Amino acid sequence: MENGSKKWGFQADKDLNAASAITVRGVLNELIESLNKQDQRPVIPLGHGDPSAFPCFRTTSVAEDAIVDALKSAKFNCYAPTVGILTARRAIADHLNRDLPFKLSPDDVFVTLGCTQAIEVTLTVLGRPGANILLPRPGFPYYEAVASRSNLEVRHFDLLPEKGWEVDLEAVEALADENSVAMVIINPGNPCGNVYSYGHLKKIAETARKIGIMVIADEVYAHLTFGSTPYVRMGTFGPIVPVLSLGSISKRWIVPGWRIGWLVTSDPNGILKNSGVVDSIVSCLNLTPDPATFIQGALSEILENTKKDFFLKTTSLLREAVDTCYDMIQGNPYITCPMKPEGSMFIMAKLNLSLLEGIKDDMDFCLKLAKEESVIVLPGIAVGLKNWLRISFAIEPSALEVGLGRMKSFCERHAKKQ
Amino acid sequence: MENGSKKWGFQADKDLNAASAITVRGVLNELIESLNKQDQRPVIPLGHGDPSAFPCFRTTSVAEDAIVDALKSAKFNCYAPTVGILTARRAIADHLNRDLPFKLSPDDVFVTLGCTQAIEVTLTVLGRPGANILLPRPGFPYYEAVASRSNLEVRHFDLLPEKGWEVDLEAVEALADENSVAMVIINPGNPCGNVYSYGHLKKIAETARKIGIMVIADEVYAHLTFGSTPYVRMGTFGPIVPVLSLGSISKRWIVPGWRIGWLVTSDPNGILKNSGVVDSIVSCLNLTPDPATFIQGALSEILENTKKDFFLKTTSLLREAVDTCYDMIQGNPYITCPMKPEGSMFIMAKLNLSLLEGIKDDMDFCLKLAKEESVIVLPGIAVGLKNWLRISFAIEPSALEVGLGRMKSFCERHAKKQ
Ligand SMILES: Cc1ncc(COP(=O)(O)O)c(C=O)c1O
Ligand SMILES: Cc1ncc(COP(=O)(O)O)c(C=O)c1O
Repeated sequence: MENGSKKWGFQADKDLNAASAITVRGVLNELIESLNKQDQRPVIPLGHGDPSAFPCFRTTSVAEDAIVDALKSAKFNCYAPTVGILTARRAIADHLNRDLPFKLSPDDVFVTLGCTQAIEVTLTVLGRPGANILLPRPGFPYYEAVASRSNLEVRHFDLLPEKGWEVDLEAVEALADENSVAMVIINPGNPCGNVYSYGHLKKIAETARKIGIMVIADEVYAHLTFGSTPYVRMGTFGPIVPVLSLGSISKRWIVPGWRIGWLVTSDPNGILKNSGVVDSIVSCLNLTPDPATFIQGALSEILENTKKDFFLKTTSLLREAVDTCYDMIQGNPYITCPMKPEGSMFIMAKLNLSLLEGIKDDMDFCLKLAKEESVIVLPGIAVGLKNWLRISFAIEPSALEVGLGRMKSFCERHAKKQ
Repeated sequence: MENGSKKWGFQADKDLNAASAITVRGVLNELIESLNKQDQRPVIPLGHGDPSAFPCFRTTSVAEDAIVDALKSAKFNCYAPTVGILTARRAIADHLNRDLPFKLSPDDVFVTLGCTQAIEVTLTVLGRPGANILLPRPGFPYYEAVASRSNLEVRHFDLLPEKGWEVDLEAVEALADENSVAMVIINPGNPCGNVYSYGHLKKIAETARKIGIMVIADEVYAHLTFGSTPYVRMGTFGPIVPVLSLGSISKRWIVPGWRIGWLVTSDPNGILKNSGVVDSIVSCLNLTPDPATFIQGALSEILENTKKDFFLKTTSLLREAVDTCYDMIQGNPYITCPMKPEGSMFIMAKLNLSLLEGIKDDMDFCLKLAKEESVIVLPGIAVGLKNWLRISFAIEPSALEVGLGRMKSFCERHAKKQ
């Protein structure tokens, strides 16, 4: 490009473009573009984990009022400390302490812009040339995207569908070496809907300790559970292995647009502090953006005073939805679901491609489904599992039925002639 | 560190720690720690640019009500598009268009977490191995901190105190080479209080064009002006050179804790788009956190319907404050101020160290001032100018007088005996 006599000195950043292409959002945008605008029927969004637009999933008035009160107090118009304001840190510690066998202090807590920024900060701090991180497959591709920007080589271990999507711990041991820094678990799981037992989490802790890595526990779906396995926080095993717990109010309070979450060290032995990791977290937060101060100011009220009823209503809606979803998938011979989810908002189902005609793979399936039936479903490839589908059941129950019904008609229309 | 048989694989990130140590916040924290807790007098904070805690600087109810309405509508609990929601982008474009000779469209606008994130995104996108960026001295050290993390070598050009802190354009030409990507100007200026004339900004544009770099215009203090020079946006010169304008509502609306701002391309020739820089901005935003959706939802109301009275009240408070501040500095022989600020919230004054006894440098001055007089002032070294002081005058007028009075007693007490 010439400007008279000289070239401009700036240019595009191809690494950034490559990293950003990995995200779920990128794939969903592609599907949305292939919708048929002539179709008069409503689009059924089974692709993402944000039910906030449906009236039945509206957040609690306790949370809304807490924000209004904090705002109107005019005490939170100022810049916040980069680690978060004290009342918010203390409220998060108290909130997690209800589930832990030891006590976190506010100093263990860092307030972040949702779980997303907690992931970003964690991987930024852990990255160094040559280091590697162990990520689950299937998983949440934002980890891969950030790792690629943070000097972290990614090594994948499988989640085992035949064992309720438990971590393949032998694979973890085989993958790790002296440059491994951490392994990630997502519990309750996206995309699998797993809720891990106390016993499995303990084994994860022991394995990580054995190989000398920390556990990053993504608990953004904490307490969104509706099966028989009791929910246990990974931080419970902080005495065995240092744990970084990442969370937010996005999912349980159904306010992903409020952008507030946390990064918490569960590490009673002080290993993260002594190794300097905690100082590096603080440094990283000094350089990255903060959540709005008045939202931080509202957090203690939200965490402490939300009524049980609100949570019960949400989990019973989700339980009903997963029942519907699982049954309808059982009634569709073209897809198979190895496990009924016990938590989160997602179910993984395998495409039986051999029964379908003219469908190349999962992406092809999803593109044609969007075009022909105005139903959006995420292809498994976007979460690391080719020829699977990730279906979100966190939508209004009637819409869920319509969506899965359309998916069945679609499959029947594309069935191989016998 | 041993865990039985093995070492832990993770460690501290020293580069992060080094980058974060550069920030203003780090220096201010050090000063705050040296305050004398026995001193009964109130601490006078002349160190930072956040007057929101003072009742006379409370934001407008238009802005507060806009947030409440957006929140209560329940339309903004969802995730936002990573570039920002359309109504916010359009409102920002309209807001800037009032000051521009051509029209921006919503596509030129990216919503960010304050001006801070606009800086972070800009430098992240522009960085590449070997590239360099030209930064003003004195300046805003967050640029240096982010550059050090983004593959951008920093080269400093001086602002000239004897010429109203104008850019030393000859120095800019001498510093630049084929690896230079951009120069930064801050207008109205932090820390100098400069407001550049149309003619000077045009010369900046022409110089940048000549050497083939873009101009990054930090306009976070836009319209906070109270002198005789009319405020002109750098984007005015977008037809000469591509301009990235960075801004926010933090300063003019006195709500730095709300964390909303923008990154805008003023580039009617489409050079940034054609070079791929715009795509890289979008990619970067896909990977970084977003402002709360309901705050984005409130932005059009805030930008369009804030009453003139509110702005007039703020600028007249600041004008009164700068008059007081300038007069009191003139009455203090131990510090010298080359120019009365016409904008922003800061004044730069030079320490006459030769008249003082037992004061090593500006940092020493500020530490002792904090300890002995409970007055916080930023040492110039924190903004790149050793043995100067940056004084914020954006505080309650009576407190300003008390603070500068204490500073004078301090100087007199430490004066060299003649
Ligand atoms: C596993 C997982 N982690 C993190 C996030 C991001 O959460 P937040 O909205 O709190 O940033 C999501 C959102 O979908 C998720 O599924
Ligand atoms: C020159 C300059 N740029 C950017 C910022 C950050 O602004 P914001 O609060 O919008 O992130 C500041 C804050 O003091 C500043 O002085």
